[in-house]
Amino acid sequence: MPTPLRLGIAGLGTVGTGVVKIVQRHADLLESRCGRRVDIIAVSARTRDKDRGVRLGDYEWEDDPVALARRDDIDVFLELIGGSEGSAKAAVEAALESGKDVVTANKALLALHGQALAETAEANGKVIRFEAAVAGGIPVIKSLTESLAGNEIKRVIGVMNGTCNYILTRMQDASLPYEDVFDEALKLGFLEADPTLDVGGIDAGHKLALLASIAFGTQVNFADMEIEGIEQIRIEDIEQAADMGYRIKLLGVAQLTARGLEQRMSPCLVPATSPLGLLDGATNMVVLEGDSVGTISLRGAGAGEGPTASAVMGDVADLARGFRLPTFGQPAESLRAEQPASSATPAPFYLRMTLRDRPGALAKIATALGEAGISIDRMRQYSHSASDAPVLIVTHKAQRRDLSLAIEGMKATGVLVGDPVAIRIEDL
Amino acid sequence: MPTPLRLGIAGLGTVGTGVVKIVQRHADLLESRCGRRVDIIAVSARTRDKDRGVRLGDYEWEDDPVALARRDDIDVFLELIGGSEGSAKAAVEAALESGKDVVTANKALLALHGQALAETAEANGKVIRFEAAVAGGIPVIKSLTESLAGNEIKRVIGVMNGTCNYILTRMQDASLPYEDVFDEALKLGFLEADPTLDVGGIDAGHKLALLASIAFGTQVNFADMEIEGIEQIRIEDIEQAADMGYRIKLLGVAQLTARGLEQRMSPCLVPATSPLGLLDGATNMVVLEGDSVGTISLRGAGAGEGPTASAVMGDVADLARGFRLPTFGQPAESLRAEQPASSATPAPFYLRMTLRDRPGALAKIATALGEAGISIDRMRQYSHSASDAPVLIVTHKAQRRDLSLAIEGMKATGVLVGDPVAIRIEDL
Repeated sequence: MPTPLRLGIAGLGTVGTGVVKIVQRHADLLESRCGRRVDIIAVSARTRDKDRGVRLGDYEWEDDPVALARRDDIDVFLELIGGSEGSAKAAVEAALESGKDVVTANKALLALHGQALAETAEANGKVIRFEAAVAGGIPVIKSLTESLAGNEIKRVIGVMNGTCNYILTRMQDASLPYEDVFDEALKLGFLEADPTLDVGGIDAGHKLALLASIAFGTQVNFADMEIEGIEQIRIEDIEQAADMGYRIKLLGVAQLTARGLEQRMSPCLVPATSPLGLLDGATNMVVLEGDSVGTISLRGAGAGEGPTASAVMGDVADLARGFRLPTFGQPAESLRAEQPASSATPAPFYLRMTLRDRPGALAKIATALGEAGISIDRMRQYSHSASDAPVLIVTHKAQRRDLSLAIEGMKATGVLVGDPVAIRIEDL
Repeated sequence: MPTPLRLGIAGLGTVGTGVVKIVQRHADLLESRCGRRVDIIAVSARTRDKDRGVRLGDYEWEDDPVALARRDDIDVFLELIGGSEGSAKAAVEAALESGKDVVTANKALLALHGQALAETAEANGKVIRFEAAVAGGIPVIKSLTESLAGNEIKRVIGVMNGTCNYILTRMQDASLPYEDVFDEALKLGFLEADPTLDVGGIDAGHKLALLASIAFGTQVNFADMEIEGIEQIRIEDIEQAADMGYRIKLLGVAQLTARGLEQRMSPCLVPATSPLGLLDGATNMVVLEGDSVGTISLRGAGAGEGPTASAVMGDVADLARGFRLPTFGQPAESLRAEQPASSATPAPFYLRMTLRDRPGALAKIATALGEAGISIDRMRQYSHSASDAPVLIVTHKAQRRDLSLAIEGMKATGVLVGDPVAIRIEDL
């Protein structure tokens, strides 16, 4: 008779209660699939007296997640508290040091402290699993680490923040300005307590940093990621992009180049009919490119109780089955501290700006671009009644830093109203 | 110093040489990811003297795959010969009985003999892995068995024969008849030696049977699958479907219902803008529906050297890492011999037929449908110059067997020219 796998769950929010529900509902299914029972022994949350819609009476209660992590009667500590510091971090460290494996949905914690935590885990002969931290129920960590183990990974691309994708597609579908849709998302509870985490690209950036580490065997390095949020995107940009056959997505791209590790999270124009362009609403998609497998795309819900709890339980099932892997797919000490890329891969850019309607204004802009070595693929000045003229430019492939120089030059001409918006075009 | 994982490879066709290339190219990558070396010890193929574009001189050669399978100096036997009987089957049995794990890309072998082979594997404490048998490089077996281990699987849907999807999309894109595109595919080498395996839906049916077993914990049962190929699809069907906002796909669907296990592989109309409807060319897609995860879609190349070899190497890496699972995700003896569904889930159907242009013909057809209890959602008779009139009918939801009765009734009226074509509509 095999021994049960004993869980301690810290954090009983959406994900934590979702996990409890699965363990209760599918006890037999889990046993037949894992060859042993999966039992919850103890739980912990900030407040004990709260109706969470699940039976908790059979489990031991701990007020302190660190005390839960140190209990002798659990095998696996589930960290579902969240946040990169504080009790989540302390409890994960305590769990590893006291000989527990860890399953977590905490992208911020691992993006900021992943290397140190992976080293702690290995020093204690334990593992950290975090499928739920990236793209909800989509099996992207497992696909990269295990299914594609025979591939050199060429590139990882993803739309991994459902809230941003919801905002961008809703703006387009309803022809609404950013501010209105942002308020809608706020009311719907789609945004983090600090909305900058979502719309500033930080949450998605955390996820990309984790995928990059696994894909390229490098130390997780969120600090050096190029990050831009969607706050600058206006309905005009979405409509102009659509007019050219594109959609705007908050796109993460990671690749290892001769210039170092390129990691960027930014709004991009992608072809409207590509799988990423067609991704509507809060759905997530991750595209993995390997030297043998070619391109595979994984699509599904990136958040929510069910999908995230499903991913947590996938990790739990692996541990129940005795599958053990280093945190980032290979020993922490073997992960390289790769230099961040000195420059991103060149790409065409979309530029939108407003010019003062005066003779020679457009020529001055074109000159500023030319002086920075950027050539123009297409340019349109829209008819207008006001004294200011909206102008749209699509450049040929350019370096982002050359474009920044060009934008400085354009501003110096004095013919611009406000700042230009520059969005990378990814012809996937 | 961990011992290397020692491979014996039987079959050096496209997939076999692909695997050899990966092991040679990525020896170091595999070692860092798996924590041990992966070495090829011996190989076998029908002809020894043939330039396969890879170095084979370092490996032992066996003329007989069964002898290779029995060698004492290998840990894992890679069966890349193909075919459900003969040497592939004999060699897999020999490997298991002599204490080797097996990795195979052979869908036919497992669809027809999976239960017996799984039992043999378990009796010998060994495992069979077959990610490469279903949808090439797409990690669908692993996702189902491991990532979704906490889910009750509700339904599995897939476009899993790239050749059929190529033919159907090429017919539409180039407005070419089935026969012309079939000949093209033949010349391009896209078809199996026996093309019926592809266009008759058998190859895709084998894959679906394997997924159903894993998804529902049932014994693999290919014999009771409802299978229909794409040979009947005419360019008119594709154009009419497009006109109604649909695409025609060879779609596999498996679900466990109160009426038993439903498994069907048949052409279906799917919404043109759904992920499955948008799937062009030889690409594969599998959609998995779980009670917690919701719907996830996995998309990629379903065949070819790189993708298939990538999947084989994913399985090899798992074995190198010590990950061991029963063949169909739970012990073979625990798999239920589920009854095939007495009837498929009702659906609307598309019907195309040609009527003799005589008074009352359409009324007779409508009457035959009504007598079988099938109601009509839409009907169109096209203008025509000839004496025969093309008619298109979309029914309300109906049982397939009622529709068959109706078709018999329609034929008995004597107003039909040829047989009607009936295609299920799946509003995914």
